[in-house]
Amino acid sequence: MSANRLIYLPLGGAGEIGMNCYVYGYGPAGKERFILVDLGVTFPDMDSSPGVDLILPDISWLEARRDRLEAIFITHAHEDHIGALGHLWPKLNVPVYARRFTATLGKLKLEEHGHSPAAIHIVGARPETVEAGPFRVQFVPVSHSIPESAALVIDTPAGRVVHSGDFKLDPSPVVGEGWDDARFTEIAAERPVKALMCDSTNVFSLHAGRSESTIREPIRDLIKGHGGLVVATTFASNVARLKTLAEAARAADRTVCLMGRAMKRMVSVAQETGVLTDFPRTVSPEDAVDVPRGNLMLIVTGSQGERRAATAQLSRGKYLGMELKKGDLFLFSSKTIPGNEREVLKIVNNFSEMGVDVMDDNGGKYHVSGHANRPDLEHVHRLLLPDMLIPMHGEHRHLREHARIATEGGIVSDIVTNGMMVDLTGDAPKVVDYVETGRMYLDGSVLIGALDGVVRDRIRMALNGHAMVTVILDDDNETLGDAWVELRGLPERGRGGSVLVDVLEGELNSFLNGAAPKLLRDDDKLDEALRRVVRQVAMEEIGKKPEVTIVVSRLMAE
Amino acid sequence: MSANRLIYLPLGGAGEIGMNCYVYGYGPAGKERFILVDLGVTFPDMDSSPGVDLILPDISWLEARRDRLEAIFITHAHEDHIGALGHLWPKLNVPVYARRFTATLGKLKLEEHGHSPAAIHIVGARPETVEAGPFRVQFVPVSHSIPESAALVIDTPAGRVVHSGDFKLDPSPVVGEGWDDARFTEIAAERPVKALMCDSTNVFSLHAGRSESTIREPIRDLIKGHGGLVVATTFASNVARLKTLAEAARAADRTVCLMGRAMKRMVSVAQETGVLTDFPRTVSPEDAVDVPRGNLMLIVTGSQGERRAATAQLSRGKYLGMELKKGDLFLFSSKTIPGNEREVLKIVNNFSEMGVDVMDDNGGKYHVSGHANRPDLEHVHRLLLPDMLIPMHGEHRHLREHARIATEGGIVSDIVTNGMMVDLTGDAPKVVDYVETGRMYLDGSVLIGALDGVVRDRIRMALNGHAMVTVILDDDNETLGDAWVELRGLPERGRGGSVLVDVLEGELNSFLNGAAPKLLRDDDKLDEALRRVVRQVAMEEIGKKPEVTIVVSRLMAE
Repeated sequence: MSANRLIYLPLGGAGEIGMNCYVYGYGPAGKERFILVDLGVTFPDMDSSPGVDLILPDISWLEARRDRLEAIFITHAHEDHIGALGHLWPKLNVPVYARRFTATLGKLKLEEHGHSPAAIHIVGARPETVEAGPFRVQFVPVSHSIPESAALVIDTPAGRVVHSGDFKLDPSPVVGEGWDDARFTEIAAERPVKALMCDSTNVFSLHAGRSESTIREPIRDLIKGHGGLVVATTFASNVARLKTLAEAARAADRTVCLMGRAMKRMVSVAQETGVLTDFPRTVSPEDAVDVPRGNLMLIVTGSQGERRAATAQLSRGKYLGMELKKGDLFLFSSKTIPGNEREVLKIVNNFSEMGVDVMDDNGGKYHVSGHANRPDLEHVHRLLLPDMLIPMHGEHRHLREHARIATEGGIVSDIVTNGMMVDLTGDAPKVVDYVETGRMYLDGSVLIGALDGVVRDRIRMALNGHAMVTVILDDDNETLGDAWVELRGLPERGRGGSVLVDVLEGELNSFLNGAAPKLLRDDDKLDEALRRVVRQVAMEEIGKKPEVTIVVSRLMAE
Repeated sequence: MSANRLIYLPLGGAGEIGMNCYVYGYGPAGKERFILVDLGVTFPDMDSSPGVDLILPDISWLEARRDRLEAIFITHAHEDHIGALGHLWPKLNVPVYARRFTATLGKLKLEEHGHSPAAIHIVGARPETVEAGPFRVQFVPVSHSIPESAALVIDTPAGRVVHSGDFKLDPSPVVGEGWDDARFTEIAAERPVKALMCDSTNVFSLHAGRSESTIREPIRDLIKGHGGLVVATTFASNVARLKTLAEAARAADRTVCLMGRAMKRMVSVAQETGVLTDFPRTVSPEDAVDVPRGNLMLIVTGSQGERRAATAQLSRGKYLGMELKKGDLFLFSSKTIPGNEREVLKIVNNFSEMGVDVMDDNGGKYHVSGHANRPDLEHVHRLLLPDMLIPMHGEHRHLREHARIATEGGIVSDIVTNGMMVDLTGDAPKVVDYVETGRMYLDGSVLIGALDGVVRDRIRMALNGHAMVTVILDDDNETLGDAWVELRGLPERGRGGSVLVDVLEGELNSFLNGAAPKLLRDDDKLDEALRRVVRQVAMEEIGKKPEVTIVVSRLMAE
């Protein structure tokens, strides 16, 4: 008889902030039945993933075992939790469960990818329960920076697991249900919590978190005090913030205009699902043009400096008929995610050049985080008193710190990162396997592996430039015409002002003229030798070795 | 008779933090004699300048008028003030003046570039005076994060200008002269200050700055309290910080080992010039290996996450025989410059994986800035009471804010950015010309213009990949062999799994077979047509349009 075990395996989100993707399994070793929690994306950057459109978790391991997968549960509709659904759901093809707002957005994603939205099922809050193989799963409302975020209570024969999702302790979050200690006290009282998988994002924030409602008055005062056009940006999905901003506009006799596709979609889904009520009337950008600037407020996308979003567009000039000018106010009701500073500051400086007054979060006056801070995390540890705590939703430094404070608080805790399969059946998490995992890149319309070399080659061309050499040989291995060189991303002239292409072609031709027939016959050796010539000459002329592509064409007598 | 005028023209540093380069002129319009203050660099990044080694100001305007240039003055030895000297001095070829520590580092730079160090003259502090054409220039000691930083008093027949350089108000900066109000009171009393060109870096920091000496005790306590190996990083040029760190090591019975070329050079120049005394004995990395970990402290380069510096190397594993492990402490006695967050956090996470305890500046406990904060700036405005204030050393947002607070304080102020020539002769700065300026890239060993298209092409290859097509035609415009395609930085397979190269070659060959002779005869049109085929097919297959290089070889009958 092989014993049943309860396992936990993050395929994304543990060791990074992004592309959350967590597998739970129950059953005999190697025969567990699975559920998947969240299927998110992360965003590319020029440093490490130039040209890539989206980064997704590599779920090949799960795909190969999809006959054992019962269902997917989505905790909330942030892209790092739901963004890969449209791309990866077909590989798994099991029912998806989520609360109404999340499910509605998820259905739109499936439809956009040409799949039926029927795979997604709307689930009410606990006590409503989804049975999925050996798992019984409930959605517990928590407050976060998007409506209807949920923690999951996952019951198994081996015990109760609480998967926190993303949350903060906000009793009055402006939109949606507030955080309620009683819900969690009850969960722990009903059945002891074996394991708590817990959001670690803000573990380094030492003060208690603040409520969304604390920024209503400051934002209202800021906007009331301003004369020109007022523009504010925040995450489109932060529906509560949109409401706060729109209400501040109303209080200042300003009509609201939403700019950016994502923002309009969020507001309409939030209204449609009943999450958002009393949202002030908005006008379209076309109509906004006719509203006096002092009576208008734009709420726009692009708080992270995204090149194509409304904020960046407005910082470059006219956008949808609107143009900022001296005396206008631009409010970043947001915090810059590490790595986006350069783009955001570029925008701020553009606005500065226009004479626009820019206001950032002002030390938290105009923005609050959606994640639980350290004291809040410790509070939740005490509420649930789990046998073990496994930090998730964090870079390694967050996970380590979270495990440290849990351990200090007397709770067994360990760092589990992507690809580590742990057995939760005993008193402490026990590593039982390392699973191959990683990242997939959506590049244009195709998925490629992060380690396929495609992006590595792009980075190399960006760093070193690219030289292409064409040589034509006849069937006697004589060169036909001269070697031809094309350069991209390389200086035109080298040392002493000589034209680099000319120097390279000259050296290649002398080399070819002096080359032994044996070398000219051997494709690989010839390629290698020509490459070496190019790199050496370039090193002398311009002090760097480019990437080189050699094309040797052999023309046979006809 | 043409009236003499006093002009100011920033060629770098005004509208950015980096590559400081400021021209002053005095004389009849178009015949002014010039001095140059500072000749710095700025650092490239993957987003906007991949593969570039260094960014320098484009000084072509000044180079074309170098017969009118009297001298170069360097305020201090930070790279953004002196870094371009070795590269650009030969284009100007005039005497360079600096204080001893700065001059010593400058001489090393000239020597490294094969120039005689004799061009650099060491100048003592005010009242010592350098005469340069119509200018009389004095170096006034100020405190900053490098030894012997100086403000310049620039006397001209049209009045006295104070060029602040980089400074903070630190009466006890651990190394070198402290800030002294009396020096500046005296300067203003001696002769009214017509214009103050003033550092704007920290204008958004609302509290008064803190002294370097305030972090001595916290750093000593931190290090004393730790058991394993201790490693600290800061800017190599922050000699005071190096001393603070080394003294903390001594107090904790730890031997100091310096790692990183820049750090060793700074300490040795500081000692050689008498700036740094009482620096504890250090050991080399080779000898450090034999020191017990609890009795050793490494002080290393790379606080900004630079890939090749010691910090990054240690985060990747063994470096010069040293390897960090669980229980060691790594202190960032530094602040991350915006834009470097991603690289620094990568390192922090690597250390976290090793079990190393990482400490950052801890809200200023272990690091203080080298620049004057807003109240400090306002204090200096009041000390000097200039007729006009021109903010420098800042991005546009800094300059704008600095001009705003000066104006609020009753001082005439205006924003002057790179390339704007202003006449200071009257009561307010008056724009008299816009000069073409910009950035040069040091790329390998050659200088290229930022707008030459080289870097643009690299970025495009990084974003879009690169497809190369080779076609051979005979003198009847018949194709010889098939079209050949090479891809770099592009997915191997497209839609439905077909091999992209094969699909492209197939489509190109059918196109060529059906092409009209007229098209095949016309190089430009053929190139254009083939390019279009590649981009269309790629768009269908992989959803993106690559960069394309077409090589059509025409073989003539011999």
